[in-house]
Amino acid sequence: MAELSEQQSAVDWVLSTTRTVRKRLDLTRPVEPQVILDCLRLAIQAPTGGNAQGWRWMVVTDPVKKAAIGEFYRSAGRKYFAAKADSKRGEQDLRVQDSAQYLMDVIERVPVLVIPCIKGRPANVEQSAAYFGSIHPAIWSFSLALRARGLGSAWTSFHLAHERETARLLGIPEGFTQAAMLPVAYTIGSDFKPAKRRPVEEITYWNHWDNTAAR
Amino acid sequence: MAELSEQQSAVDWVLSTTRTVRKRLDLTRPVEPQVILDCLRLAIQAPTGGNAQGWRWMVVTDPVKKAAIGEFYRSAGRKYFAAKADSKRGEQDLRVQDSAQYLMDVIERVPVLVIPCIKGRPANVEQSAAYFGSIHPAIWSFSLALRARGLGSAWTSFHLAHERETARLLGIPEGFTQAAMLPVAYTIGSDFKPAKRRPVEEITYWNHWDNTAAR
Repeated sequence: MAELSEQQSAVDWVLSTTRTVRKRLDLTRPVEPQVILDCLRLAIQAPTGGNAQGWRWMVVTDPVKKAAIGEFYRSAGRKYFAAKADSKRGEQDLRVQDSAQYLMDVIERVPVLVIPCIKGRPANVEQSAAYFGSIHPAIWSFSLALRARGLGSAWTSFHLAHERETARLLGIPEGFTQAAMLPVAYTIGSDFKPAKRRPVEEITYWNHWDNTAAR
Repeated sequence: MAELSEQQSAVDWVLSTTRTVRKRLDLTRPVEPQVILDCLRLAIQAPTGGNAQGWRWMVVTDPVKKAAIGEFYRSAGRKYFAAKADSKRGEQDLRVQDSAQYLMDVIERVPVLVIPCIKGRPANVEQSAAYFGSIHPAIWSFSLALRARGLGSAWTSFHLAHERETARLLGIPEGFTQAAMLPVAYTIGSDFKPAKRRPVEEITYWNHWDNTAAR
C-alpha cells in the first residue's frame, strides 16, 4: 500500500516537527482568518468525552485586547520565573527560559492569539483528566494543522492566572473555562527538527512498572 | 511547494479520520510491540509544560491483568450509564452508548491496553489544565500515529474511578497519575470518515464572545 506509507511518512513528519515556536514566529506577516478557520475545522474533528463538543474558540486579533492580554501574560510569567530563579537548571532549561522571555516581551505583537474555551468546570482534580481530555486533543490537532500550513504556535498557560480578567475583557461567560492560549503566526523558515528525547524504550513499561522488556 | 501541499493533505486526512474506534477493533490480530514503540516514539515529541517530559507509558498485554482492568472498567462504565439512564438522548447518543457498551464487554480481549502516566498530581483544578496539558497532546499524537499505521484506539477514562486498584495491579508508584486508558488494535478496514460537526464558523468568536464575523 504505497499510498498509506506516503501518508504515514507525512504524519510522522508533522508529529515529530511540530515544535513550540516562539522566536521564529513571524510578527510582521498577517495571518488570514481563513487559515485559522481551516485549522479549527480540522481541530474539532478530535474526540470529546461523551461526544460533548463543548468547545468555543476565542480568536483575538484586536491590538488593544492583545495588549491587555499581554499584560496578564507577562505578569504571570514573571511570577513563574521568579519562583523558579533559585532552582538549578541545565542548558536546555535556560534556552527554554530565554525563549519564553522573548515570547513574553512580544506576545501582543503576535498576529493572532487563540484561547480555546470549554463548557463547564471540573468539580475536582479527579474529574479534570476527562474534562481537559475533551479539549486538549483538539488544541493539539489545531497546532498540527497549523504546522502543515507553514504556521507555528506555542501552547501556553500563563494567562490562566488571570482567567477572570481575560473573561471580562472578551465577554467569556461564567459557564466556560479557558484551557490555554496559543499565539499563532507564520514561522520564519520551516526546517524544524525533532526534539531530543529520552529513548522511548526506557520509559515504556510492559505489564509492570519498570519492566522495559517489550512483549 | 508541491511537497508541502502533499504533506498537508496527509495531515488533514489523519486529523479528520482518526475516530474513536470500538466495534471495529480487530480482537483477533496480534499487535507487534514494535508498532507500539514506534507510535510512542512519535508521541513523546509532543510538548510538555516547562519541558518536564514527566511521562511513563504503561502497556498491558498480559491476559490476567487485562481481565482485572476489564472488571474495573466495566464497573465504572455501568455506573456512568446508570446515572445517565434518565436523561433524554438523541440518536447519536444512543449509537455512542451502544458502541461503548460493546467495548465494555470485550475490553480485555483488545490486544493492548495503554495507560499513560504522568509524574505528580495537580494540587487543584486550576493547576489541572497545564498539568494534563503535559500528557494529553502526546496521547493524541499516539492515536494519530496508530491511525497512520492501520491501528485504532479509543481514549477512555472509565478505569480512572479505580485508579488506585489499577496502580496496585501494575506497580504504578504513588508519585504518578494515570491520565487515561487506550485500548489498541488493528482496525477492521480503514475507511473511516470525518465526523459530523457543527460548522466551525458558528463556534469561533473573534475578539468578543458570540461575534462570529471573522477578521
